[in-house]
Amino acid sequence: MRITIVGSGNVATHLAAALKNAGHRIVQVYSRDLQHASMLAYHVGAQAVNELSAVLPDTDIFIISVKDDAIIEMVKALTKHQKLIVHTSGATNLNDLLTFTANAGVLYPLQTFSKTKEVDFATVPLCIEGVNDSIQADLEQLAATISRSIYSINSADRKILHLAAVFACNFPNYLYTIAQQLLAANKMDFDMLKPLILETAQKVQTRSPADVQTGPAVRNDQVTMSAHLQMLSHQPLLQDIYTLLSQGIIKNNNGTHGDK
Amino acid sequence: MRITIVGSGNVATHLAAALKNAGHRIVQVYSRDLQHASMLAYHVGAQAVNELSAVLPDTDIFIISVKDDAIIEMVKALTKHQKLIVHTSGATNLNDLLTFTANAGVLYPLQTFSKTKEVDFATVPLCIEGVNDSIQADLEQLAATISRSIYSINSADRKILHLAAVFACNFPNYLYTIAQQLLAANKMDFDMLKPLILETAQKVQTRSPADVQTGPAVRNDQVTMSAHLQMLSHQPLLQDIYTLLSQGIIKNNNGTHGDK
Repeated sequence: MRITIVGSGNVATHLAAALKNAGHRIVQVYSRDLQHASMLAYHVGAQAVNELSAVLPDTDIFIISVKDDAIIEMVKALTKHQKLIVHTSGATNLNDLLTFTANAGVLYPLQTFSKTKEVDFATVPLCIEGVNDSIQADLEQLAATISRSIYSINSADRKILHLAAVFACNFPNYLYTIAQQLLAANKMDFDMLKPLILETAQKVQTRSPADVQTGPAVRNDQVTMSAHLQMLSHQPLLQDIYTLLSQGIIKNNNGTHGDK
Repeated sequence: MRITIVGSGNVATHLAAALKNAGHRIVQVYSRDLQHASMLAYHVGAQAVNELSAVLPDTDIFIISVKDDAIIEMVKALTKHQKLIVHTSGATNLNDLLTFTANAGVLYPLQTFSKTKEVDFATVPLCIEGVNDSIQADLEQLAATISRSIYSINSADRKILHLAAVFACNFPNYLYTIAQQLLAANKMDFDMLKPLILETAQKVQTRSPADVQTGPAVRNDQVTMSAHLQMLSHQPLLQDIYTLLSQGIIKNNNGTHGDK
């Protein structure tokens, strides 16, 4: 297919590269910032543009991968070309696009992307939604060229997925940051925690996380929890986080039992 | 070495198996619960005992791997044998043992263990502390037979490590549980999130977590955060967790920039 990428962020970058590798032709990359557009365009053999008026109609699909609050502006500018328009956002309802075009869909990759870190796109779950069966089928076919893991997900469920992803990815990453800072403040190296972080994530690939919960909270070890809060006495935010997450583990554990 | 394992929980189980595999002889396994002692003893070819009076002096080292508040009781009962006594606890000071014996040390494995999940012990960081250089050296030698990753860590630093491990492992695992519950309540499968969870943990093996932070909070995307809080309106605990962790990410991001 001939594909136009609108956006040059993390998702746009990885998606464009995966589509290019799968043999599609990336026609243009649009970004408000010409340098960003050029960098990505160079990598995928496309033309870089930073004016919406310079976006060509000669394409099969516009993939909009920009900040959520900029999506509609892009849609408005592109509908005149009468081509399929999809966005890649977890939080944006497909209905939001239908005011402007009936030729719309969603291709939401459920993964965390950083520009400098390669991802095996074949394992990235792609959540597909089309306004009709024909678009749905086209998007599934396109998705199948870059991933083995394709789900048909409506807008309501996609919002739940996006929220769950915040808990499963963005928040754990922040907790890793806290752990790193605690060690750094005491001249210890974050490397020490890396096997633990990896094993924790690997364990839930085959076990239910509630069944493999470990640590002071699931044992209701009040002495250790009090000592930990004492150690955080100069960091009230971390104390609050510690208290709240421990409460959640204790509450969750009532009636079940983890791997204490 | 001839080794006596005191305890039969997750750490005792994995440590005893690793020591046995490394060619050491596990003499006895003690647990208050004879069934638990027997199960582990059977696996490592040891004798099971559930009375401290039945613990034999004919060993080189007692490894105490029980709940923190039971460690001292074990130490008191075992000092009469005048053998090296070590505990495996992150939160227990080595000094706590010195009231009872000068022949003491710590062997703290910085990993999360579940009985039903195998672990490659060679990659588990082992934190060693001895009351003197001779014991320190003996413990390092023992540790080297089961792991490639050995650290000399004093009690104060070990407490920090243990606290950091709660943030890096126990809390993320609880957040995975929340994510699973959010999906289950909407009849979606936790499998969808597994690649995301694994990639999040893999990413920080080679990147600093603060540098690869993604999600609505690091973008300060107030619209999405408000929508997420609205979706959690019937779960005040999850709302509080969402708010607090998002605040932390936003605060952390001031002055730096993550992978928005």
